[in-house]
Amino acid sequence: MPQTGEISAASRIAALLVKVLCMFKRRGHSEKHKTLPVTLVVHAGAGNILKQKMTYEEEEQLRAGISQAIDCGYAILRNDGLAIDAVEASVRSLENNPLFNAGKGAVFNRDGINQLEASIMDGNLGAAGAATLLTTVKNPITLARKVMESNFHVFLCGPGAESYAKEQGLDIVDPSYFWTRHRWEQHERGYIHNKPLTTGNSGSSSLTTVASATLADSKHKGYLDLPMGTVGAVAIDANGYMAAATSTGGMSNKWDGRIGDSPVIGAGTFANKSVAVSSTGAGEYFIRQGTARYIALRMQLLGESSDQACKAAMSEMKASGGDGGVICISADGYPSMVFCSAGMYRGYCSQSTKHIPVIGIFGDEKIAPGDIHIKL
Amino acid sequence: MPQTGEISAASRIAALLVKVLCMFKRRGHSEKHKTLPVTLVVHAGAGNILKQKMTYEEEEQLRAGISQAIDCGYAILRNDGLAIDAVEASVRSLENNPLFNAGKGAVFNRDGINQLEASIMDGNLGAAGAATLLTTVKNPITLARKVMESNFHVFLCGPGAESYAKEQGLDIVDPSYFWTRHRWEQHERGYIHNKPLTTGNSGSSSLTTVASATLADSKHKGYLDLPMGTVGAVAIDANGYMAAATSTGGMSNKWDGRIGDSPVIGAGTFANKSVAVSSTGAGEYFIRQGTARYIALRMQLLGESSDQACKAAMSEMKASGGDGGVICISADGYPSMVFCSAGMYRGYCSQSTKHIPVIGIFGDEKIAPGDIHIKL
Repeated sequence: MPQTGEISAASRIAALLVKVLCMFKRRGHSEKHKTLPVTLVVHAGAGNILKQKMTYEEEEQLRAGISQAIDCGYAILRNDGLAIDAVEASVRSLENNPLFNAGKGAVFNRDGINQLEASIMDGNLGAAGAATLLTTVKNPITLARKVMESNFHVFLCGPGAESYAKEQGLDIVDPSYFWTRHRWEQHERGYIHNKPLTTGNSGSSSLTTVASATLADSKHKGYLDLPMGTVGAVAIDANGYMAAATSTGGMSNKWDGRIGDSPVIGAGTFANKSVAVSSTGAGEYFIRQGTARYIALRMQLLGESSDQACKAAMSEMKASGGDGGVICISADGYPSMVFCSAGMYRGYCSQSTKHIPVIGIFGDEKIAPGDIHIKL
Repeated sequence: MPQTGEISAASRIAALLVKVLCMFKRRGHSEKHKTLPVTLVVHAGAGNILKQKMTYEEEEQLRAGISQAIDCGYAILRNDGLAIDAVEASVRSLENNPLFNAGKGAVFNRDGINQLEASIMDGNLGAAGAATLLTTVKNPITLARKVMESNFHVFLCGPGAESYAKEQGLDIVDPSYFWTRHRWEQHERGYIHNKPLTTGNSGSSSLTTVASATLADSKHKGYLDLPMGTVGAVAIDANGYMAAATSTGGMSNKWDGRIGDSPVIGAGTFANKSVAVSSTGAGEYFIRQGTARYIALRMQLLGESSDQACKAAMSEMKASGGDGGVICISADGYPSMVFCSAGMYRGYCSQSTKHIPVIGIFGDEKIAPGDIHIKL
């Protein structure tokens, strides 16, 4: 047993060591703050996206929309802003763009209603917020953030969520704001292309539904061919803080009240101090896989790179019959964009791109080392 | 390079080896089928549960209710039934028992409404179903199962989910069915014990709400002291198949539209071929942690035992300010019941208990090696 004097001396040495370590840590942090390169990655949906399915003008508009969304978030990061502000700004831009399936431009459910959902996670704080089944909130991602920052609850739904949005002074719109011609036509095509079925006591529509029709199809192929898409962003800021955000109109002709993976923390969205992930695709598969959390934990527990973890998740997704993609940033700012569908609207911006957005759409483009198309 | 004859001989030997291995595997499986002991674990809520807070009669009723729920599920397992049937039966029993916070006996939200939610997962099939914000479905767990088995979607909410329940012929009740005096009194105490606040444009209640009141309290202590609770079951059957089920009324005086962790696959419920997990507690913390998936992945990726994985998750939960517990079964049938709150209603049944339910409530009971109370 040491003497009291020895303990005291040992304690003093220990205390001094802690102080010195703290000084180094602070210096390290301050240097990190100055030098850490920022990165932003966005996606705007994955699915059966093929060059022959769109005109040159459509493709250019889609690329411009993704580029604009990156600019909105990246400007914040370049100005020493926070990752959480950057991902919200990028997703708001995509929500406001009628080309993408989130906010204005969202798909319709089987009853011809837009039901929107979103979630956000601040990796530095470990805080999360989500909202679902919204019909009047212009920017669901901003409501998700309000829930994260100002409400004890993490996940709010429907009229309760919309009351809260009003109370917080968010932009409220008439449901007709979300109507767009091309989504309405997709909604109608969903009925026409699927075999009629009576839906019993559904009480919501006398028409048959794609959902009902495809229930009988064990492979659900008709469903997976319909527009799904989701938009999302992940970022790392100059402090090394990370964040993820995801927003969607869901799956075209989904059932009233269907919740997808986008508002589910751990499936559509996840961030902590070392990784940020946002998913897009056939949400049911992503909920079962817990995709965003799965990727984060493979990196955390196995020490895998973001490319390795995303490839593992998307390979298993493909093998299970699912379809979609993920974007991911690791703590060193390395961007991964990994998808197992034909294409994924995606783009990123960092020092390595000379701060200019680089955009990809199709499976045969490779816009970065971490831009990986899984073909099984 | 070997000659053709050599290849052919090598192939024959290889084919023979494969056949022999298959025979062993089949024999192994058949023996496993006969000898694999079945196990069922249930929980019926965790929180500030103390012996001095209840009478002897109340304690006996609670123990009898848990025991009855175990009997319902365990009888199925003993009769060579499926784990998925067993967990549904146990949870239905708890839903039908007014003592527990699920089904009849659910807590009220801030507007005095019961909003119920549940989820279920079949580990063998990798299938999952969930439903939330239900007000008329007598047994939410049975709706979750219907969603899992008969609907392409995984997660249905509110009126859409209730239409589907009707269509599927499930028991529909008037919302008043869920009313119980003790929950109503808890609902009212929530108002009385919290400082009045005006809630702005909430539009749902002129009264102040516990939620609003505790928003100002960064530690949310008032909230965590209110009844939360959730019921759940995990099981392994004679085939080695595993399943998990969770059902709840949520958090007393929660906001209208609040979704907790119970219907969130990966947070409240998860099962695959090697583990089944069900959670209970302050749902917001479980959503952020993705608790059920986290435990499963610690076991899968790190090779931890269920005790180790549950202890890690609940220690981190406690450290982050959260509160609650988990039940977990691993592929060898070993039951873990790990909680970081004062107590957890829990029980299990297996060969090792001589097929008699063993029940625990308080923190200082230890009903099995895997019954672990985390105190930090």
